[in-house]
Amino acid sequence: MSTMNNQVQKKMNPLTLQQVTIQDSFWSSREQNVTETVVPYQWDALNDNIPGAEPSHTIENFRLAAGEAQGEYYGMVFQDSDLGKWLETVGFILSRERDPELEKTADEVIDLLERAQQPDGYLNTYYTVKHPGERWTNLRDNHELYCAGHLMEAAVSYVQATGKRKFLDIMARYADYIGTVFGPGPDQMQGYDGHPEIELALVKMYEATGQVKYLELSSFFVDQRGQQPHFFDQEARQHQENTARKRNYDYFQAHAPVREQHTAEGHSVRAVYLYSAMADLAVQNGDQQLLDACRQLWKDTTRRKMYVTGGIGSSEYEERFTVPYDLPNDRAYAETCAAIGLMFWAHRMLQIEADREYADVMERALYNGVLSGISLDGKSYFYVNPLEVWPDTANHRHDMSTVKVTRQPWFGCACCPPNIARLIASLGQYIYSQNDERKELYVHLYIGSSATVDLADQEVRLIQKTNYPWDAAVELELDMDHEAEFGVSLRIPGWCKEAKITVNGNEVTDAVMSNGYASLHRTWQPGDRIMLEMSMPVELVFAHPALRENAGKAALQRGPIVYCLEEVDNGANLQDIELAVGSKLEAVYDDELFGGSVVICGTATRSDAIAAGSDALYATSPAARIPVQIKAVPYYAWSNREPGEMTVWSRYRS
Amino acid sequence: MSTMNNQVQKKMNPLTLQQVTIQDSFWSSREQNVTETVVPYQWDALNDNIPGAEPSHTIENFRLAAGEAQGEYYGMVFQDSDLGKWLETVGFILSRERDPELEKTADEVIDLLERAQQPDGYLNTYYTVKHPGERWTNLRDNHELYCAGHLMEAAVSYVQATGKRKFLDIMARYADYIGTVFGPGPDQMQGYDGHPEIELALVKMYEATGQVKYLELSSFFVDQRGQQPHFFDQEARQHQENTARKRNYDYFQAHAPVREQHTAEGHSVRAVYLYSAMADLAVQNGDQQLLDACRQLWKDTTRRKMYVTGGIGSSEYEERFTVPYDLPNDRAYAETCAAIGLMFWAHRMLQIEADREYADVMERALYNGVLSGISLDGKSYFYVNPLEVWPDTANHRHDMSTVKVTRQPWFGCACCPPNIARLIASLGQYIYSQNDERKELYVHLYIGSSATVDLADQEVRLIQKTNYPWDAAVELELDMDHEAEFGVSLRIPGWCKEAKITVNGNEVTDAVMSNGYASLHRTWQPGDRIMLEMSMPVELVFAHPALRENAGKAALQRGPIVYCLEEVDNGANLQDIELAVGSKLEAVYDDELFGGSVVICGTATRSDAIAAGSDALYATSPAARIPVQIKAVPYYAWSNREPGEMTVWSRYRS
Repeated sequence: MSTMNNQVQKKMNPLTLQQVTIQDSFWSSREQNVTETVVPYQWDALNDNIPGAEPSHTIENFRLAAGEAQGEYYGMVFQDSDLGKWLETVGFILSRERDPELEKTADEVIDLLERAQQPDGYLNTYYTVKHPGERWTNLRDNHELYCAGHLMEAAVSYVQATGKRKFLDIMARYADYIGTVFGPGPDQMQGYDGHPEIELALVKMYEATGQVKYLELSSFFVDQRGQQPHFFDQEARQHQENTARKRNYDYFQAHAPVREQHTAEGHSVRAVYLYSAMADLAVQNGDQQLLDACRQLWKDTTRRKMYVTGGIGSSEYEERFTVPYDLPNDRAYAETCAAIGLMFWAHRMLQIEADREYADVMERALYNGVLSGISLDGKSYFYVNPLEVWPDTANHRHDMSTVKVTRQPWFGCACCPPNIARLIASLGQYIYSQNDERKELYVHLYIGSSATVDLADQEVRLIQKTNYPWDAAVELELDMDHEAEFGVSLRIPGWCKEAKITVNGNEVTDAVMSNGYASLHRTWQPGDRIMLEMSMPVELVFAHPALRENAGKAALQRGPIVYCLEEVDNGANLQDIELAVGSKLEAVYDDELFGGSVVICGTATRSDAIAAGSDALYATSPAARIPVQIKAVPYYAWSNREPGEMTVWSRYRS
Repeated sequence: MSTMNNQVQKKMNPLTLQQVTIQDSFWSSREQNVTETVVPYQWDALNDNIPGAEPSHTIENFRLAAGEAQGEYYGMVFQDSDLGKWLETVGFILSRERDPELEKTADEVIDLLERAQQPDGYLNTYYTVKHPGERWTNLRDNHELYCAGHLMEAAVSYVQATGKRKFLDIMARYADYIGTVFGPGPDQMQGYDGHPEIELALVKMYEATGQVKYLELSSFFVDQRGQQPHFFDQEARQHQENTARKRNYDYFQAHAPVREQHTAEGHSVRAVYLYSAMADLAVQNGDQQLLDACRQLWKDTTRRKMYVTGGIGSSEYEERFTVPYDLPNDRAYAETCAAIGLMFWAHRMLQIEADREYADVMERALYNGVLSGISLDGKSYFYVNPLEVWPDTANHRHDMSTVKVTRQPWFGCACCPPNIARLIASLGQYIYSQNDERKELYVHLYIGSSATVDLADQEVRLIQKTNYPWDAAVELELDMDHEAEFGVSLRIPGWCKEAKITVNGNEVTDAVMSNGYASLHRTWQPGDRIMLEMSMPVELVFAHPALRENAGKAALQRGPIVYCLEEVDNGANLQDIELAVGSKLEAVYDDELFGGSVVICGTATRSDAIAAGSDALYATSPAARIPVQIKAVPYYAWSNREPGEMTVWSRYRS
């Protein structure tokens, strides 16, 4: 199916959730919140047990499909995927710690899935209940394979957590059936889903089952995309669609074969799900051409179309990428799910390339554009993540109707909250990787945790202690039975300009820097302690000059955290505030705010309120400026207090 | 109907088109273009004689209504108003110079109007042809009285130009009939049109005929607006409308009685047409309360919701005013018609108040936001007038789909072009006013022209010579039979900080300044020459700090002309350019460009292209800056060469 060669090899593999336990002052409470609050809430939502919320009907749809209830299908065409995301999250939670009650609930709903599955393996409630006999008639719009993909991801998560194969078997039967329907054969459909997702899921199915056919099916879907004659054209002709109403195919990343796609186009979530699968297949098939496409798409995405928060997809219309450097702050779309998808893709590229660039983007998205999507109490969510908000326009301008000033409760949007939940629940797998051949352990993210890894023929227990992201001292303790020779590669983040590494208090001078990783190869003794101390000053960040929106502006960043100004701290009219060379900017730990957070305090100027008291709209002299104190807070934490203005980018006078 | 008192008196009355002849290096060619190109083109358009253009069907609709053709109505509900605007423009042209051929065409179409008029006086082709029997059933949406208003304005223009009363009589019959349908009586409708227009037209009808009932009908419409029980509610109930789909009544300026409206709301063209009528009625009825409402609305409009170009209505959605200081540059709507309507209103307020503030706004709109609407060759038009354009986003972002990078040919938009045509054709009436009692002649606009006025019991011929707006020397020669005592009040524009007045070479020291007008009262001799010399340096203009969009930015203005940078002169990425204190900015007359224009040349800085060659999207040091030469051209003339970026506001470093 694709060019086989041996040029493409993963540099490393992530440690799994079974190997890693997070115990961290920043993340543990968030993990706990997902386990104790979000997952039970979501279960109630799936079962229509939330008073006042719009019914989800998801579980009821499965009961209908199983013939165990009477009534009509209700919900979006992709309602099944909500259960998929929930079960995947449950799997991640159970990977960390088994929970008999939660497992019982999951097992029961897996039993229901089995009963809802059709004799031929098909499993989709929308078509089974609402449009029997119309399977595979609108792949472009109806998310049929997308739903299958989410359920497959869940099945893999669940078997890895519990060892129970039933769900995997259900999904394997479905995948087998799908493999009979789609493929290059004359009696098969040469189609693919409008929303990529099954492609990456099938790679997971292959990894979980060893069935090469799943890999081949994934490759088929990926390579069939955008080929001529165009499948979506054929499909549209079959249901005699009014072609005037159809979207451009770039919305679906189906405007060209994927190997000929060099720029990130269309719906940004779909894009990064597809690119993630492309990265997977490049490795699995040793496919250099596909990897080259991934690299080009990566550059276009991260060097021309990504917010400083890691948000992508700057247009509300079609939730899409637009043109290079079009990153408006106030009308940013930057959907939470897209930043999450960017993490998925970055994580895969990182394993292939072992280049901190990927980890930097992954971390940028995680601490900013992903985390901004959930409130500190875990109960409300941003779907859209603007970098500048003026409530007057956000609340009144029609072209900003998707920009919200406060996070919305769960049921206001059904897609981002479960995606944040599964990301946080699976965060452990993003922290470490290992390379068996080179006997190398990689540390990508600095998150308090312990990990168990087989290295150099013995089990090594790694304990990471840190107060990251508030300070950048990291201690790594190596716990093992006897000495061993292996490598430890520590990511020196792109934001870090000075780092010191010591082992047992002695400064390391022989670390080899490679693509942003400091590699320490030596014979380690049990109890060895590696200390990584990174300087983490407040930095002013400037955008490329072609990013017109941010001309003359700077953002504040410290470590991985992008900061913002909020009205509650700085008064209204934040655009009036100007930073300058020599502005004193100081990081201060506030143990009350947001449950403990570093804030940035500093000096700036703003217009003299008295001078500005004139009501003339235009004048030939600017308002006089006076010095002011400013306070910046982490962007991800904005809108957790009084609603008001917010800005990431401030005017800067060099 | 309204509180009668004598507090409100007009300070002056405009000289009419019969009294003023423009002969000006800037304006005569534009007047000529309207006469020789635009009006014949528009006539062809009304008669569907333009190959390739969408048919207008306007004349054919009148033939159908007259029973002289077979077929169906075609066009918008307000198609009749296109003929109204055309005939009004023809009247303005004939006021300056009779033209038998044009007059014959007009007379013939007026005959057609007469034949299309129903026996009871009703004259609207949409209802007569398409929905007979359904008159007055949807005043909110269907522009029935709006069309009547435009035809009334045309009738007044035509009788003033030609002395022929037929058209006025036709429209008087229609107005009489309308007066039977609408009014406070128990058998009358207490309604009004969704689009204000008839209100100001009825005042003109009153002035042309002396019929007080037209004034009373106008007052009824204005004061009925927004009263409870709400007419639009009743109307909606009558056609059992789905109320979920209706607009807010502020769109129609019908959210409250007009005397209780203190802020400019809704569709901006509708707003200023209404406010113009309110100003007319305040004078005619001596209605202080109505004038106070006008003043408040004026302040809100011009001090919180007006672009530096005089554009108003910053939102494409509903072409409306939004919240104070919401004036985005790249998504500016700023419809050409709205700037024209602002001139209508400003002109009326000026006659009442004799305050240059009104003339300043009138002039600001005229030379910027109105004139930008038409190309230099008069053949293409902007409907929307942004202050910043980046073609990449204007052409690709869905939320900027109304922003055009180049002007569109006439038939691309049917509303602004005829409005510009009638404005330019009637420009003569905006230049001068007189006050009979005080024997005072006011000069508002500096446009080469001659005027004839009865002052102090004799005919005074005034000849104005100037090269305005390129230089600010104005010569006024008074030509009359014998000496006479009267006043001449010269507007010293708000942009002018130094002015010198001489009479026959002797500096005037006894001029009385009042509200921005320098008044010279004396006994004038035939042949006296007044010279007004105003300093007209290049000015940097700054926005009120609350106008967040322009924080840290300046616009260039010289005299009444707002300038902009274009890509064709300054390269791409105009937002990268920064002006600074001490930037050398020089006005240079270029006799080739745009048929002769002052341009502004100067120094600024921009990012070093080499430093900017890095493709990193974010960095911790800003790109190095290098000095560059810039060239700014009049905003109204942008997009007459190679299409590209444009910006009015540039970053400014104080």
